[in-house]
Amino acid sequence: METNIQNLGECSFVSPLTHSSFEVTFRSDSERVLFDHLRNEGSPATSGAQNNSEIGFELAGPRENLFFDPSKTTAAVVTCGGLCPGLNDIVRGIVTQCHTRYGVTRTFGFRYGYEGMISRYGLTPMTLRPESVSQIHNFGGSILGTSRGQQDIGEMVDLLEEMDVDILFVVGGDGTLRGASALSAECKSRGLRKAVVGIPKTIDNDIMYLDKSFGFETAFAMAVQAVRSAYVEATGAINGIGLLKLMGRDSGFIACYAALAGSNVDFVLIPEVHFELEGSGGLIEALHYRVAKRRSAVVVVSEGAGQHLVPHSSATDASGNKVYGDIGLFLRDKITQSFRQRRIASSVKYIDPSYMIRSVPANAQDNVYCSQLAQHAVHAAMAGKTGMLVGRWHGAFVHLPLDMVTNGRRKVDPQGELWNSVLESTGQPARLY
Amino acid sequence: METNIQNLGECSFVSPLTHSSFEVTFRSDSERVLFDHLRNEGSPATSGAQNNSEIGFELAGPRENLFFDPSKTTAAVVTCGGLCPGLNDIVRGIVTQCHTRYGVTRTFGFRYGYEGMISRYGLTPMTLRPESVSQIHNFGGSILGTSRGQQDIGEMVDLLEEMDVDILFVVGGDGTLRGASALSAECKSRGLRKAVVGIPKTIDNDIMYLDKSFGFETAFAMAVQAVRSAYVEATGAINGIGLLKLMGRDSGFIACYAALAGSNVDFVLIPEVHFELEGSGGLIEALHYRVAKRRSAVVVVSEGAGQHLVPHSSATDASGNKVYGDIGLFLRDKITQSFRQRRIASSVKYIDPSYMIRSVPANAQDNVYCSQLAQHAVHAAMAGKTGMLVGRWHGAFVHLPLDMVTNGRRKVDPQGELWNSVLESTGQPARLY
Amino acid sequence: METNIQNLGECSFVSPLTHSSFEVTFRSDSERVLFDHLRNEGSPATSGAQNNSEIGFELAGPRENLFFDPSKTTAAVVTCGGLCPGLNDIVRGIVTQCHTRYGVTRTFGFRYGYEGMISRYGLTPMTLRPESVSQIHNFGGSILGTSRGQQDIGEMVDLLEEMDVDILFVVGGDGTLRGASALSAECKSRGLRKAVVGIPKTIDNDIMYLDKSFGFETAFAMAVQAVRSAYVEATGAINGIGLLKLMGRDSGFIACYAALAGSNVDFVLIPEVHFELEGSGGLIEALHYRVAKRRSAVVVVSEGAGQHLVPHSSATDASGNKVYGDIGLFLRDKITQSFRQRRIASSVKYIDPSYMIRSVPANAQDNVYCSQLAQHAVHAAMAGKTGMLVGRWHGAFVHLPLDMVTNGRRKVDPQGELWNSVLESTGQPARLY
Amino acid sequence: METNIQNLGECSFVSPLTHSSFEVTFRSDSERVLFDHLRNEGSPATSGAQNNSEIGFELAGPRENLFFDPSKTTAAVVTCGGLCPGLNDIVRGIVTQCHTRYGVTRTFGFRYGYEGMISRYGLTPMTLRPESVSQIHNFGGSILGTSRGQQDIGEMVDLLEEMDVDILFVVGGDGTLRGASALSAECKSRGLRKAVVGIPKTIDNDIMYLDKSFGFETAFAMAVQAVRSAYVEATGAINGIGLLKLMGRDSGFIACYAALAGSNVDFVLIPEVHFELEGSGGLIEALHYRVAKRRSAVVVVSEGAGQHLVPHSSATDASGNKVYGDIGLFLRDKITQSFRQRRIASSVKYIDPSYMIRSVPANAQDNVYCSQLAQHAVHAAMAGKTGMLVGRWHGAFVHLPLDMVTNGRRKVDPQGELWNSVLESTGQPARLY
Repeated sequence: METNIQNLGECSFVSPLTHSSFEVTFRSDSERVLFDHLRNEGSPATSGAQNNSEIGFELAGPRENLFFDPSKTTAAVVTCGGLCPGLNDIVRGIVTQCHTRYGVTRTFGFRYGYEGMISRYGLTPMTLRPESVSQIHNFGGSILGTSRGQQDIGEMVDLLEEMDVDILFVVGGDGTLRGASALSAECKSRGLRKAVVGIPKTIDNDIMYLDKSFGFETAFAMAVQAVRSAYVEATGAINGIGLLKLMGRDSGFIACYAALAGSNVDFVLIPEVHFELEGSGGLIEALHYRVAKRRSAVVVVSEGAGQHLVPHSSATDASGNKVYGDIGLFLRDKITQSFRQRRIASSVKYIDPSYMIRSVPANAQDNVYCSQLAQHAVHAAMAGKTGMLVGRWHGAFVHLPLDMVTNGRRKVDPQGELWNSVLESTGQPARLY
Repeated sequence: METNIQNLGECSFVSPLTHSSFEVTFRSDSERVLFDHLRNEGSPATSGAQNNSEIGFELAGPRENLFFDPSKTTAAVVTCGGLCPGLNDIVRGIVTQCHTRYGVTRTFGFRYGYEGMISRYGLTPMTLRPESVSQIHNFGGSILGTSRGQQDIGEMVDLLEEMDVDILFVVGGDGTLRGASALSAECKSRGLRKAVVGIPKTIDNDIMYLDKSFGFETAFAMAVQAVRSAYVEATGAINGIGLLKLMGRDSGFIACYAALAGSNVDFVLIPEVHFELEGSGGLIEALHYRVAKRRSAVVVVSEGAGQHLVPHSSATDASGNKVYGDIGLFLRDKITQSFRQRRIASSVKYIDPSYMIRSVPANAQDNVYCSQLAQHAVHAAMAGKTGMLVGRWHGAFVHLPLDMVTNGRRKVDPQGELWNSVLESTGQPARLY
Repeated sequence: METNIQNLGECSFVSPLTHSSFEVTFRSDSERVLFDHLRNEGSPATSGAQNNSEIGFELAGPRENLFFDPSKTTAAVVTCGGLCPGLNDIVRGIVTQCHTRYGVTRTFGFRYGYEGMISRYGLTPMTLRPESVSQIHNFGGSILGTSRGQQDIGEMVDLLEEMDVDILFVVGGDGTLRGASALSAECKSRGLRKAVVGIPKTIDNDIMYLDKSFGFETAFAMAVQAVRSAYVEATGAINGIGLLKLMGRDSGFIACYAALAGSNVDFVLIPEVHFELEGSGGLIEALHYRVAKRRSAVVVVSEGAGQHLVPHSSATDASGNKVYGDIGLFLRDKITQSFRQRRIASSVKYIDPSYMIRSVPANAQDNVYCSQLAQHAVHAAMAGKTGMLVGRWHGAFVHLPLDMVTNGRRKVDPQGELWNSVLESTGQPARLY
Repeated sequence: METNIQNLGECSFVSPLTHSSFEVTFRSDSERVLFDHLRNEGSPATSGAQNNSEIGFELAGPRENLFFDPSKTTAAVVTCGGLCPGLNDIVRGIVTQCHTRYGVTRTFGFRYGYEGMISRYGLTPMTLRPESVSQIHNFGGSILGTSRGQQDIGEMVDLLEEMDVDILFVVGGDGTLRGASALSAECKSRGLRKAVVGIPKTIDNDIMYLDKSFGFETAFAMAVQAVRSAYVEATGAINGIGLLKLMGRDSGFIACYAALAGSNVDFVLIPEVHFELEGSGGLIEALHYRVAKRRSAVVVVSEGAGQHLVPHSSATDASGNKVYGDIGLFLRDKITQSFRQRRIASSVKYIDPSYMIRSVPANAQDNVYCSQLAQHAVHAAMAGKTGMLVGRWHGAFVHLPLDMVTNGRRKVDPQGELWNSVLESTGQPARLY
């Protein structure tokens, strides 16, 4: 696991933060945050364990010397992929930090994701200033707009050259960050001294080596409201079933947390845990049993769960993600049918709140978290870091190589504490097959 | 228009309210609220106008003499049809008013709508007491549960006889109130001295002769949040379209109010106003024009709008309502298709928030309104009124005959102020055909 | 009671609304809304009653002919007095209506109330355009700022002349509206053809001849949250007392509604109902009795209640309102003291949420109501109405003469339904003396 | 620093979790979480640094063997001190975990803090069952009630003996936890095999060795709303000043986070950072400068800030905390006075929202966090841990000795990142003296 961060070159400019009215604690690249902070006193330290414990991530924070000369630097930001609470906070944080702390006064926002970086599409970049972004955190979405999908790396770098952009901040998920990595590589191969810094965005909270992704807390708080609606609908009808589909293509974090917070959920179905519909151990049987006992049930399903059950095409969306079959509608129909077949009066209420969840403004906690991410991204970029992203690990802000992070996804561990808590809280069988 | 209210008989018991520690203002049946309070000074009073202006509704409020002897009275309440914010407030208000003001201490709640009044279904009624209902207004839905559809009138009256229920409060919509009317008639034909009092429930705000229905303000406030989501999604994508389906089978009040409050809507489609999809004056053309101009658009559609466009079955649901074709999904597909055909990049985000809207707890305004409705329902029932419901007309609480109210539906007037304001606020063409 | 509205003169311009794409229903001055819509069938119509029932208010709405030529008209708006939810909605509504419906493109906002109309203070008026006000309803307060107090009428009219303002919209309370009346009179005496139109603002809901004032519903919903806090604090401690001071200088509407909606209040004290602290029938005794019984109590007091008890100065504030003694702090100390004297452990938690209530953004209901008020104010002004205000009476929007409205205050009727409901809901003695 | 946890004795009962339908990952006492997870690659590992890095906290989680026999165990919980969001979640979590996972079916709740553990006060403990606590997390406060202050340790242990309570869960702050430590010691000295397990509560987030305290996120989100009110009030008046007092006796975390999230704050005053009022570098001068520049200012002050300025008594409250002088009212008067002296029109709006902040229900994030804390507290207690508390350190749940935690307070570091961000965000001078 390579955790070292790529640097554009020697840092020969003194940071304007050294002239702050208050004492700034500068960080050096040799400061690391341990990857593993658990120890077992009983077991003898094997050399492997020792090595593992020594792997660490570069600590984020202001550097005393900068690679870029602030007075001559141009920065730009682009937001890609699906909406997520906090995008505007990130944009605002970057612009404010650039202007007020570093004196970088040329900051642009590319429109509608990577599309806005292809000049022949004619999407004029926005000029961003602290005044124009000062209240945008009160609104959901992204003032820049977003889009899915890759664009030609060469054309994008052409535009960066043409506009003289030195630093590009890229906010997006997996695919977007792979694009950022390619942009960084292309700049390098052209001999351009440009920094590409990522800020990982995933409403599913499924990015590796991150305590949590921005917007996740806001999102799951909204999801809890949807759980509440499902519960009210379920208990309001004879043998009522509230069925709720939540985000989570590959990871069921939102479904798990929403179930834990609301505590009125009977079944949680996530991509990480296999289940079957039919058969004596399957979901349908378990659901009938539960409804017979309690007269109602609430089922929460991640969009990526049970994909082997759903007929699906081989298509991919603009981001290159496989288009999933709709497990929510599928379950709705199957459950309805099963009650009908057994001639049991029932009523299935299906809720798909995804757009209402991802479009809300960030809550207070995410307001703060997003500003901190943005601040650290700017610190890193000014020091000439590139091909990397900022994250938080065990409570500390760190720098991570882009490639390390996009190589896998964080998942709910079916043997871990979180899933145990969910099983406990729902009382659902550990095996639904 | 017959506005007189049916009375069970002579009121020979003195109201316990006469012993209140404070002076209660009793009302008499001769107090009326004018149906029409507009006058035109210029035009000579024709006898017709004169007559019309003299039609009035019986004023609600406490009566000095009661038909029922409080100490020997048993009351029951049933909630029917779809969920609506405020149901628990109504239940709570009735129970509290019966117990604390009239000393009626036996109050029951039938479970799951009219089904709970059919004894062979075995749904034991709940015994309701002030303590057990004191906090239920903090939760959405109905603690009694609801169901759709009629049940056998005779069997229901049998149960009322068996349980010795003197007063039945029926909370529900159109169909439910027709049932209440039948129950009242059946009691009369059996010579039973039982009062059946309705409290009209319609999240669509489409009941005649009512200023507004309970729960409507809560519902449209939630709808405004959904509009905001649709707007954020629309503006977040290139040529983004936020499509929102709201309640409103026959009337578009929620759609209209949500559009007015949020002010980010480009098209409102309601059942009262005809529109076509195709053709140079149709919705699709207008939408393309708008998107070309603004790069995004928000469309709000009532579930009952454009039914001539949607393929639909001849089925009816358990309440006897015609099952509507899904105009939301229909529009989503048609709009998506039209952009594809013209090879214009676009992205349609479809939101159907109905269950999340109707399941929330009543807001403060509806808390108060529901208690007032419940109080007046109890006043009316104790005075032996039957076959009627309580409502509010021009700010005053009144008694209305059940049959008068279920004979039609309140609708948005396409020539009226409300629709004018919507056209103005959206800027949509007055004719979409 | 004179209900006729003053007109600047003949309306010789055709309204641009006649060219709307949709049919606008124009109103004429002869259309009236009855002041009294209650009738008593039993009692013979006395001539007095007859007359009273014939008094009516001019119906608001668009006029077919205008006094002002839209293309040459300049409008301005000023917000005065304390903050109230909805101020920004009103400003936004006026600007939008002027521009988009009437084509009046010069609209100004005076800064900080009447102070902004005194040119020597140097407070440059803001130029307001639809784009610049399109999102302001998402924020509390007033983008114009406000101030209390009168300014020199002559100087203000001088500025109107200088700036060529034809129409002045004045948003404010009692004192402000008296100022508006004086401004209108001064214009008349100078022979200026300027319209002064008021929009009544009072978070206390105490303006005469109005169904409700804008912002009131938003405010009392926030007050309900404060009641909930008081209740949680009270029940969280042994013999805990939650004491909440709410707005209401002369009228206790907010206190009453907040108590009704929240239903956890034990005592409501309002300006309209006398109470004493000491003595066997006084508040202190009743409170000790309640606490002994329930171990906690919640007391809600309007700021204007019990003023005979509080030591107060003879001062007046900038608006000319008498400075009230602080009944909240007074009660806090007296109650604390009384428990201490009787050596009963207790804990008084005092909450004064006024600034947190009045500064929130308007809720969805008030969003709509404020736009409607603004629209009607613009309709009236364009038709040359002056010295008047727009209001809503029994559900209909009307024109009211300024002088009629500022001649008294709407109050909670101690014999009426509202106060009865409060007594019932709290169970407090009808007399606290 | 002693981080080892006291154990009551040998664990000879097999945990019922071994029979779970799913595989539970048991933890052993030898698993530790490092205290310090930062490393500096550049600097040679000194023996001190090495040692420090090896200090670790015992990892929390289920143990395979238990000290207590679940079928014979009685547990009790007590909540002490001021209200804090999440108390009901903790109570609910403990009861649910005891019953559903361990089969401990006798769980009591002592009323009103330690007072409820003194039998002569006659406060009958509540019997708690999963059904009775299943919805309490929807309400603020504590269903048990709380009180401040110590009670006689001997009498409390007497009651534990009398009621046969084996495990006592104590939820409270500093003073309360010192009491818990004394209770644990007293049990030991009497030879009683009782576990006393703490769950640290502090709305100020000032407990040592904790990532964050429960309820903190909920609280600061509410504080952000208060900041918004202060800002609206400040900008609504000429030279308006919004002054907000927030919790924080010794630590300014809430003030700092609220300022960062809201971003409309001009001055933050916290206990950790000295400031003076007068003098050319003092607050008053800086405030006048800011107001002159921007026409308004928002000041946020922690209740414990600037105590050297405020006249204060030598009194202590029931918890033994020094009674602080009221810096909020003091600043309000001083600021008002200073503007008056300089004859500058101004308007100071003072907001003290503490009771409205601490009484709200926990948000979704805190719902989850509180259940997790409760679960780990039960795991620890069942394994015979005592004199300890559960906390979270760098993302991992751990056991901490009570004495270690109550020996100091966590504070905002005036040289650290948080305070730097605040200075940056407010633009206030680093020194106000």
